[in-house]
Amino acid sequence: MDMHALWSGERFSVTYRIVGDEREARERAEGVSLEQTVELPADLVPDGDIRDHVVGRIESFRPVDARRFDATISYAVETSGFELPQLINLIFGNSSYQPGIRVEALALPDSLLRCFKGPRFGRDGLRDLLGAPDRPLLATALKPMGRSAADLADLAYRLALGGIDIVKDDHNLANQPFAPFRERVVCCADAIRRANAKTGGRSIYVPHVSGPADQLMERARFAREAGAGGLLVMTGLVGWDMLRCLADDDRIALPVVSHPAFLGSFVTGADRGVAPAVLLGQLPRLAGADVTLFANYGGRFDVSRSDCMGIATSTAAPMKNIRPIFPGPAGGMHLANVPSMIEVYGRDVVLLMAGGLYKAGPDLVENCRRFRELAQTPG
Amino acid sequence: MDMHALWSGERFSVTYRIVGDEREARERAEGVSLEQTVELPADLVPDGDIRDHVVGRIESFRPVDARRFDATISYAVETSGFELPQLINLIFGNSSYQPGIRVEALALPDSLLRCFKGPRFGRDGLRDLLGAPDRPLLATALKPMGRSAADLADLAYRLALGGIDIVKDDHNLANQPFAPFRERVVCCADAIRRANAKTGGRSIYVPHVSGPADQLMERARFAREAGAGGLLVMTGLVGWDMLRCLADDDRIALPVVSHPAFLGSFVTGADRGVAPAVLLGQLPRLAGADVTLFANYGGRFDVSRSDCMGIATSTAAPMKNIRPIFPGPAGGMHLANVPSMIEVYGRDVVLLMAGGLYKAGPDLVENCRRFRELAQTPG
Repeated sequence: MDMHALWSGERFSVTYRIVGDEREARERAEGVSLEQTVELPADLVPDGDIRDHVVGRIESFRPVDARRFDATISYAVETSGFELPQLINLIFGNSSYQPGIRVEALALPDSLLRCFKGPRFGRDGLRDLLGAPDRPLLATALKPMGRSAADLADLAYRLALGGIDIVKDDHNLANQPFAPFRERVVCCADAIRRANAKTGGRSIYVPHVSGPADQLMERARFAREAGAGGLLVMTGLVGWDMLRCLADDDRIALPVVSHPAFLGSFVTGADRGVAPAVLLGQLPRLAGADVTLFANYGGRFDVSRSDCMGIATSTAAPMKNIRPIFPGPAGGMHLANVPSMIEVYGRDVVLLMAGGLYKAGPDLVENCRRFRELAQTPG
Repeated sequence: MDMHALWSGERFSVTYRIVGDEREARERAEGVSLEQTVELPADLVPDGDIRDHVVGRIESFRPVDARRFDATISYAVETSGFELPQLINLIFGNSSYQPGIRVEALALPDSLLRCFKGPRFGRDGLRDLLGAPDRPLLATALKPMGRSAADLADLAYRLALGGIDIVKDDHNLANQPFAPFRERVVCCADAIRRANAKTGGRSIYVPHVSGPADQLMERARFAREAGAGGLLVMTGLVGWDMLRCLADDDRIALPVVSHPAFLGSFVTGADRGVAPAVLLGQLPRLAGADVTLFANYGGRFDVSRSDCMGIATSTAAPMKNIRPIFPGPAGGMHLANVPSMIEVYGRDVVLLMAGGLYKAGPDLVENCRRFRELAQTPG
């Protein structure tokens, strides 16, 4: 075998923000270029293809401030095997364990992007499906955990009647005895169907698909057949490539909403983890999410406005064949801040309001209508 | 349906370490008890079963130091749906996003543990398989990424010849063109077989199983048929329940080694994330890992000795039907520190040495023999 034919010369790159003085930071960048690839000290790296192609290559190194440097390291696309778990492992596998290193940016060449289908619907597809060509999309969650399937369906009916586009399960609804997955999906999908028949609208029910890894696809197919209009997935818990499988499966063919549960530990705290723009923007988009939910700033979570803007930007930044998707800021939203949310995020946004919607007034259907009016008001 | 019959009264509990003064910390504990369950403000929680059973219950609240408190919160076992992704979501889903909250401990009742098989082999089973009744087990990694399957197999042969028990793939070996999964597994399993025939030993080849979620089980079954003696899995990247599926599958029936790639961000930094004893001890053990690899202290990773001891303790702490497993400290180990590693971890340990073993001397087989002798020396 001609080993040289294996290397296309195409590389993707990761920018790591590294804490330290210049000498330390440079040494640590060199450490990352080895750790993430050959996992050997420099003197043990074989000469030839491995040293020339496999070891990460420091493409640039520049100061951010007095104690931090950005090192952009490139990796041969072939080292990803063109598979998602290994791609993410290359980006931040072992180095996730090292202090003072944060993944700041990710640049993927066309040759790598072409290996992924990305979102099936994306912004345009989801707008077509919902019959909402240009306004912000409205979403809410069926909750709380503990309600029966019938009670959740009753709630779903009223939410759709009020004009909510995306009626999703709370991500705590899994397959518990009080509202088993199949029963819940059948009841809620039917409720949304009835509400749509009454309003002429196109609301969708988006059940949370979780559970044993060997039953997930089957549950998703069941949901599709029962009339679900999308799927909610805890990407960080069921696995990044499971999201891709759900998005890519032609028998399912539903929009996928990615939930950030458990991933918060990557984005809180300084000088560590993964920038939200990468973790909750580029990666779920690459994996096939049509909407990426994330904790909004100013609420009860530890995130900054600039982090949220980073996610929103990355949902639509050019990514070759991979469609733009919707950012879905959530957590602590109220009717009163709908206008400012639209001002900040623009109209290509999924506005997710749950607690704030439930308590906005005694009549839930009326609360939904007010939400819809606020979102429809031209900016 | 009699909804009351749904609640057994059995609860599992999570201890969260919370930053703040006493009043703040107590408020934040109450916040967690809602966030992790009903995800609603207290005034919107329906009375009855939901308030009585579903909302997390603060079982104890005590100071750790001047600015930190430990709040132990219990959750009804039924809210887990007895499925792993939802169990982990209950432990630390949305709260992973909040500042100054760390999962410190996890206590699972028998009723929940019974729903999981845990490791198929555990300490005793793996010792039987390897014919090593009481000494520390030796492990190393085939590397670096970029070598051909034939070269990796040649390496595997020499490592087994030298007496390494567990010859695992580097976790960067996925399904890349330079050493495709199937070709690599066939070559390396055969190499180990030949070495065992020569030594009379029982070394095992443990390939890294990664890749598309819908091909993982198939790859693992292929590995089993090709003669692999175990499986290496990046639990945090392929998903916790995928580890369980691989461990539970009777057609595979191989020991499973959990690799912590990508999970480092949960254990670095103070006052956030998940204690290593839980994340890299209890959880992989519950999911079915027979060995849990983790970054050792004193090496190139940001971990403390007490964190490592916490993992080691949790690999054998009583867990009803769930067998004890091996801790596998790794990263920066050399022949010189084998005796101190055994002193610290005891003899129920997998000693994983790669770079240190490769560079210990010019003759790799001889290096392995010295490693084996050091590990066999009675303490």
